[in-house]
Amino acid sequence: MIAAPSAAVAAAATERLAGLATPPGALGRLGNLAVWMAATQGVCPPRELTNVGLVIFAGDHGVARHGVSAYPPEITAAMVRTFLTGRAGVSALAKAHDVSVRVLDLGVDDDLEGVPDGVRRHKVRRSSGAIHLEDALTADETRRALEVGASVAREEVAAGAQLLLSGDMGIGNTTPAAALVAAGLGLPASEVTGRGTGIDDTALRHKEQVVQQALDRAGSRVADPVDCLTALGSADLAASTGYLLEAARLGVPVLLDGLMAVACALTADRIEPGAAAWYAAGHRSTEPAQSLALAKLGLEPVLDLGLRLGEGSGAVAAVPVLRSAVALLRDVALLSEILPGG
Amino acid sequence: MIAAPSAAVAAAATERLAGLATPPGALGRLGNLAVWMAATQGVCPPRELTNVGLVIFAGDHGVARHGVSAYPPEITAAMVRTFLTGRAGVSALAKAHDVSVRVLDLGVDDDLEGVPDGVRRHKVRRSSGAIHLEDALTADETRRALEVGASVAREEVAAGAQLLLSGDMGIGNTTPAAALVAAGLGLPASEVTGRGTGIDDTALRHKEQVVQQALDRAGSRVADPVDCLTALGSADLAASTGYLLEAARLGVPVLLDGLMAVACALTADRIEPGAAAWYAAGHRSTEPAQSLALAKLGLEPVLDLGLRLGEGSGAVAAVPVLRSAVALLRDVALLSEILPGG
Repeated sequence: MIAAPSAAVAAAATERLAGLATPPGALGRLGNLAVWMAATQGVCPPRELTNVGLVIFAGDHGVARHGVSAYPPEITAAMVRTFLTGRAGVSALAKAHDVSVRVLDLGVDDDLEGVPDGVRRHKVRRSSGAIHLEDALTADETRRALEVGASVAREEVAAGAQLLLSGDMGIGNTTPAAALVAAGLGLPASEVTGRGTGIDDTALRHKEQVVQQALDRAGSRVADPVDCLTALGSADLAASTGYLLEAARLGVPVLLDGLMAVACALTADRIEPGAAAWYAAGHRSTEPAQSLALAKLGLEPVLDLGLRLGEGSGAVAAVPVLRSAVALLRDVALLSEILPGG
Repeated sequence: MIAAPSAAVAAAATERLAGLATPPGALGRLGNLAVWMAATQGVCPPRELTNVGLVIFAGDHGVARHGVSAYPPEITAAMVRTFLTGRAGVSALAKAHDVSVRVLDLGVDDDLEGVPDGVRRHKVRRSSGAIHLEDALTADETRRALEVGASVAREEVAAGAQLLLSGDMGIGNTTPAAALVAAGLGLPASEVTGRGTGIDDTALRHKEQVVQQALDRAGSRVADPVDCLTALGSADLAASTGYLLEAARLGVPVLLDGLMAVACALTADRIEPGAAAWYAAGHRSTEPAQSLALAKLGLEPVLDLGLRLGEGSGAVAAVPVLRSAVALLRDVALLSEILPGG
């Protein structure tokens, strides 16, 4: 069980919120988010969020060769290179909102020649097993990927990160992510499968069959969250899970993105219950599995802008909302300061 | 009829959006907002939003002495002073998101001694008539307030503002604002009246009667939007209307806040049809009249965080969403730039 954010600081922040020179409840969700930020930081009022870090975990998925995606797997490597040139969607958002971006190759099905060693040195394997036919990873690969994610979280926190975000890149990744959510919640494929980046009805029915076949193949192993990553996940999803889990262990808050981040957050909370208390949800995904997993974790996204870009983009776009929350609890006058004789 | 944002630039922006190295539609509402920003600026890709200005129009309402608000009118003057010390809710948000704030007394029921002349020099009158019993303003006061708002918009634009926001401060102001929406949409008080900063069921029923009495008293004059401001509005709401109208005339985009801003936007669009094409909606209000007026104007808020602080706070909190939209259309690679041989 992971220790919760400070209840004492949450109580102090709730008291400060009630004492602000604003009508009761007028800050809406920003009030709740401000209290959560204070509790995770262990200080009231909370500190400004000047050091926010996004780590994008990239990897291919064997299942992408089996008709579950609108795009060919070769896009994954091309997008890793686009992140490095700062021209991807999430790059633009991160620049606009002062968020640092780091991209790591966990399992891209390409040697990524010419790409800096810092991106490539954590690679666990090329691609992953097609989950409806075979395990995604070996147990050892899962363990190594989890540890990569944890070590990256430690590095980010050591470098001063106050808030961590995870992003994903990998054609086909909504298939293993949906399978992880189905496994975690005990749901059939029909309830968790969505259109990803935009498959048609026929491909959607096929994708649902692939997810169900993967769940059936995994069988009783779905009861164990680490086994789920081995059977149904991938190196990038296992690393992302390790990263989110380590953030919670270190007591550093996380702003989640879409389906991949939330599937990993659900898995992290299954591995060590209580992890989700360190997470907030940035953006509502159009994928049904994300909403189901968020409901289980008790989280409600702060944005719903119809983004379905992946890459951590929804979390980056939501960072200013957390900054709004922090600013209100920090900087608004207390009623006791402005009342005559107060 | 006010000229629309550039259709040619909107077409160019739509083409650029379709050419970005992102899946079709993956930017969701941010794609639409980016196209709108480009069209209002008349340039594609749109420029970064480095100069955003909020003007808060403050004024009291005679009706506030008749049991429609949870707060006494004296709060209005106290809040004007709080804006000037930078300790109000909107001050905190504006500082966090680099938005300039200007507060103007249009009709505060207080001489505001010691407050800078720049805040006081536009004052049209002290308070306004209780709208269920008498006109809020004389026709001359309405004309002067509209012109104050227009001149302030011209000043802001001359100083380089790329995006204008309006805020409001005045205890009781949801009552005239709801009446303006009812008048503009031809609806009864029962459909537009809300709880403002938090009145109970009994006060809500009374407020609804006050709004209906005001509408009945105004009678056929509701057909003219300027007469609506005279009969049902106030100096601050008339000035805000003039400001929003002048922004549209000048071709400068506006991000609207809650009920007061949207009631004035509706009135501006009645005075000169086409004005609303220059407006986007920042935040969903809990007041029913705001949603009704937005639907009429064809606008959908980008945020829904349960804020009910007034002051322009919802618009300021939404500024980063527009910045996200601009950044995506400006900075993301075109597919033609990253495709091999492209």
